[in-house]
Amino acid sequence: VAAQGAQSWLPVPPGSPFPLTNLPYGVGAPPGGEPRVVAALGDHAVDLAALARSGSLDGALPDPVATLGGHRLDPLMAAGPDAWGGLRARLQQLLSDQDAEVAVSPALLPREDLDQLLPFTVGDYVDFYSSRDHAERVGQLFRPDAEPLLANWRWLPVAYHGRGGTVVVSGTPIHRPVGQRQPSGDPRATPPPVGPTAELDVEVEVAFVAGVPSRLGDPVPTSAFRRHVFGVVLLNDWSARDIQSWEYRPLGPFLGKSFATTVSPWVVPLAALEHARTTPPRQDPEPPAYLHVDEEWALDVELELEINGAVVSRPPLKTMYWTMPQQLAHATVNGASVRTGDVFATGTVSGPGDAERGCLLEVGGPYLTDGDEVVIRGWAPGADGTRISFGDCAGTVLPARPA
Amino acid sequence: VAAQGAQSWLPVPPGSPFPLTNLPYGVGAPPGGEPRVVAALGDHAVDLAALARSGSLDGALPDPVATLGGHRLDPLMAAGPDAWGGLRARLQQLLSDQDAEVAVSPALLPREDLDQLLPFTVGDYVDFYSSRDHAERVGQLFRPDAEPLLANWRWLPVAYHGRGGTVVVSGTPIHRPVGQRQPSGDPRATPPPVGPTAELDVEVEVAFVAGVPSRLGDPVPTSAFRRHVFGVVLLNDWSARDIQSWEYRPLGPFLGKSFATTVSPWVVPLAALEHARTTPPRQDPEPPAYLHVDEEWALDVELELEINGAVVSRPPLKTMYWTMPQQLAHATVNGASVRTGDVFATGTVSGPGDAERGCLLEVGGPYLTDGDEVVIRGWAPGADGTRISFGDCAGTVLPARPA
Repeated sequence: VAAQGAQSWLPVPPGSPFPLTNLPYGVGAPPGGEPRVVAALGDHAVDLAALARSGSLDGALPDPVATLGGHRLDPLMAAGPDAWGGLRARLQQLLSDQDAEVAVSPALLPREDLDQLLPFTVGDYVDFYSSRDHAERVGQLFRPDAEPLLANWRWLPVAYHGRGGTVVVSGTPIHRPVGQRQPSGDPRATPPPVGPTAELDVEVEVAFVAGVPSRLGDPVPTSAFRRHVFGVVLLNDWSARDIQSWEYRPLGPFLGKSFATTVSPWVVPLAALEHARTTPPRQDPEPPAYLHVDEEWALDVELELEINGAVVSRPPLKTMYWTMPQQLAHATVNGASVRTGDVFATGTVSGPGDAERGCLLEVGGPYLTDGDEVVIRGWAPGADGTRISFGDCAGTVLPARPA
Repeated sequence: VAAQGAQSWLPVPPGSPFPLTNLPYGVGAPPGGEPRVVAALGDHAVDLAALARSGSLDGALPDPVATLGGHRLDPLMAAGPDAWGGLRARLQQLLSDQDAEVAVSPALLPREDLDQLLPFTVGDYVDFYSSRDHAERVGQLFRPDAEPLLANWRWLPVAYHGRGGTVVVSGTPIHRPVGQRQPSGDPRATPPPVGPTAELDVEVEVAFVAGVPSRLGDPVPTSAFRRHVFGVVLLNDWSARDIQSWEYRPLGPFLGKSFATTVSPWVVPLAALEHARTTPPRQDPEPPAYLHVDEEWALDVELELEINGAVVSRPPLKTMYWTMPQQLAHATVNGASVRTGDVFATGTVSGPGDAERGCLLEVGGPYLTDGDEVVIRGWAPGADGTRISFGDCAGTVLPARPA
């Protein structure tokens, strides 16, 4: 805490996505080296296992070497808020206290040399549908003659389970998926075409990642959000609209989504986002009691969708109707347990404006072409007037594999 | 193979669910002992880690101690068909060859003393909807004025992702889940009631479990089913119908299913089910080429749903419209990868007869009451005229937790 307002002795370029107020966690392998748990600062990554082995983290969290010495963030994520707070405070102190430079410098790696890997083992992946602007636009497209929002939408944060095993880290190329599409004739008599999707889309999303597991049968109330949630990532829920619209009745999206979901390489700890907390849109009608939240938990993250170097839209996260503590409370009100590494995504983030639409379906196309490079970025206000980021959440579209 | 027709020197009671032709795998802890990987034979369980340490499994599979020495089946499942076949052949030989009795006997545990645990780490849980009789009855109930089967149903095995993290082993008590239900008034203006489900149901299902992972982007064709699938379990997809029917539009079931899914304690290896393979129902229309199967892969498993000691129904697995190799090929045609421990369930198994309905929704109630004891059993023809089983897939309903 003392270090919040401090500068690091390590030069951090102005406007860097990774000031001392951010310190996100990831996993990266230096050239020829093993993957290791790291934190980002400016143009560097701090090798946390090396710091732990040198004794610099003693007392900051229990058993630093075991917690930080593996190939994934899993043990740190499971360690809980005291360990997260202890580690963050110690890192901010070490990186701002000139006297620590000699001890810490051997643990610094050039960030651009790292091969960044999926930072944690993904358990279940839940995808919400929490942007009212998105749900209304999609409802108008799919059901032009009905109320765009279904009756349940304002009473509960609608969600479904996606495929945890196909969550990949930024930079992983995405093969255009193959699947069945609706036939052009009578769908009961005409064989559906099978082939590469012609409607490959993106969904700009943000997700929180569970750290501390919960017990089967015990709901996680909105007030316990900070006790279970480790941090936040950007997420691209790649979607094949033609596959999705043919398959999704009556049980929801499956192959239209399950081929790949990309997350940012850095997990921004909740503590770094305290300055991004803001007032959510008013909820009308008042949701049921288990969805009440005492704190303001909208997050002021400015998102940016870029395709082949051109910004397509800038969806504002703070416009989301349902907030993250509400999402977690809803997902567990039935007693469902949470595992370390469970991912809970917002659903497509779209604002009211034409330039704030988080998927190409809403933008009105065109859909993605082979070779397209998609990048999602996000910026949030950090402490001390800084801006903090998640790193690029990027992927390139490869042609479908030959059958 | 030589041992298929043999008897064991260990007395196996007539009609035992676990003859030498079965040898299912599980994880159990003896009183006061650590969990260990075991195989079932008659009234005993063979401690496979103990066998491995004694050298009795040398040469049967690579590194027997590492593969079988942990608390889960995961390493064995990932080891692949050669290891699975090698281990099974060695066990059948050791357990039928009188000369091996002295070496094997120290590894025998009384089966009834074991506390059986979840045998493997569950990755993703996919639930299909592959019984035509079930889909037609449910369609009639939910959409009385329309064709009961939606247009996509006979072209592809409809499925959704459930919650892998709430898959529990047989015997785990199930708390009645709490959730929102449709309000009795105008659903846009009337707050939905929140409370314990009044429509707690079961779904009698069978599931296959992935062993060898596949690579992102590479479909698993029907012909590769045996190279990836380790075995089969029974599964109860507990469902809260009132929660489900309120929440499921437009993205499918979520909290109505995610509170718990029970699996049998024993995983029956595919090799034990070779004698259960039979002819599936004819598929009309002919499905797309990627769903063609060269072998007959319907499974002749007689299922039994028992509530409080009374048999409610006997759904026949062999009537399922879509077969397991088709399900796996469909789930991966878009390039989705498979992880060790992924569970793929059939969906409710229902036959055409009134006494063959696999859920209480189809039976016409009554739904479950607190204290009800639900048991699903399954029997398949094994080699040599034996019958093989999965053990009970059981759970007792506990009252909802106080809010």
